[in-house]
Amino acid sequence: MDSIIDATAGSRQDRLLLRAEIDDFNAAYAAALDDGRLKDWPAFFTDDAFYLITSRENHDAGLPVGLVYCEGAGMLRDRAFAIEKTAMFAPRYLRHIVGTSRLLRGREDGTVEATANYLVLQTLFDRPESTIHQVGTYIDRFRRVDGVLKLQERRCVYDNLLVPNALVYPV
Amino acid sequence: MDSIIDATAGSRQDRLLLRAEIDDFNAAYAAALDDGRLKDWPAFFTDDAFYLITSRENHDAGLPVGLVYCEGAGMLRDRAFAIEKTAMFAPRYLRHIVGTSRLLRGREDGTVEATANYLVLQTLFDRPESTIHQVGTYIDRFRRVDGVLKLQERRCVYDNLLVPNALVYPV
Amino acid sequence: MDSIIDATAGSRQDRLLLRAEIDDFNAAYAAALDDGRLKDWPAFFTDDAFYLITSRENHDAGLPVGLVYCEGAGMLRDRAFAIEKTAMFAPRYLRHIVGTSRLLRGREDGTVEATANYLVLQTLFDRPESTIHQVGTYIDRFRRVDGVLKLQERRCVYDNLLVPNALVYPV
Repeated sequence: MDSIIDATAGSRQDRLLLRAEIDDFNAAYAAALDDGRLKDWPAFFTDDAFYLITSRENHDAGLPVGLVYCEGAGMLRDRAFAIEKTAMFAPRYLRHIVGTSRLLRGREDGTVEATANYLVLQTLFDRPESTIHQVGTYIDRFRRVDGVLKLQERRCVYDNLLVPNALVYPV
Repeated sequence: MDSIIDATAGSRQDRLLLRAEIDDFNAAYAAALDDGRLKDWPAFFTDDAFYLITSRENHDAGLPVGLVYCEGAGMLRDRAFAIEKTAMFAPRYLRHIVGTSRLLRGREDGTVEATANYLVLQTLFDRPESTIHQVGTYIDRFRRVDGVLKLQERRCVYDNLLVPNALVYPV
Repeated sequence: MDSIIDATAGSRQDRLLLRAEIDDFNAAYAAALDDGRLKDWPAFFTDDAFYLITSRENHDAGLPVGLVYCEGAGMLRDRAFAIEKTAMFAPRYLRHIVGTSRLLRGREDGTVEATANYLVLQTLFDRPESTIHQVGTYIDRFRRVDGVLKLQERRCVYDNLLVPNALVYPV
């Protein structure tokens, strides 16, 4: 594992560059989902990654439950495959607006914790307007794998109640 | 007072790093409010700070009035305390999406002016959807205090008409 | 033409600084439109620039058509002038929230391709709430002119159907 703790413990410049790199990562991640390239989605994670979509209420209560839960690259790939092969949901466009990221801390195991707020907008093909689909915050742990930032953990904590069928899509 | 004017008058790299630092500041500021940590809010300001929430109409007309007005750390702390101790408003989640910041200019007194657009989304506990609570722009003056960026002035200029009771919360 | 390909082919730091510079550009571009300074809008483009607002559906189908189309600085200036001199639309505020940008690639001709998601909110003067006006992504090509970043090409690809009269404004 390549450590990135030096970047958070290091100089102001190192920290700001790492933050910019996380912004870059989040923009690429959002573009993959917005473009519907679900098969590219698992590559943003480490092989042992943990992915969760949960409500703010559950998160604040310390409950580990969520409406979507993936552990490991296999589950992420299964999920992406399943969504691409099903057509039970109305066709729609999604668009992520991700706020600038915030570095929280580097940990002794070489990972870095960061957060970023997100807003996902949804446009149904037969409706003229876009609407707010999901509002929340990413609570992330990043690790560098062969020099490339990957998500070891992403918790998507949403504020709004969600209709279950929309949850089929990753955020 | 530590001067930060060198960063704006300086090289392209210095300016971009300062801009990244302001993005970082805005993300931390938003997280404090989104998490409901109102007691942390005054610490983002200098002791002699000026804070205003005003309409775009009043701002464009050069009117110094606003619906929320704080001058000095004491007023900021009083406001944060009052909000935390009152329960007259429906419980809700707030979520800030702050656009990337823009450096305007460094001033001779060592402060730096910057702006950033913001969108605040609101989720009431008994309503399934999130709605647009406030849309506007921060017009800021930053100063470095013991090496840390602080707001000497933040004007929150909102586009939309606001219902008065929502204004109890800082933006 | 000043080449900026070195910045994308170069070190991680060079790339991140270029990305920060594009964020800065997008924030300044948004502010010009949000402030209603339409006469400043053409200066964000090169003299031979191409500007297009088109639907995601048309874009994905490879159709070069769009609801707004400008080629060259003259057309951009004409458009800005026409909007400023007409008063056939209800007065409104617009506010851009632009996500962090993503560098795609540097090209051999010295230009750099990048994208950024955007959300434009609209507030009509006689309505209390702000609404979602347009959601989409910028697909850009930047070129450096006398050291300053300019848009050689900006394609605004929107997700939602738009009411025609709102399209008079650039995005």
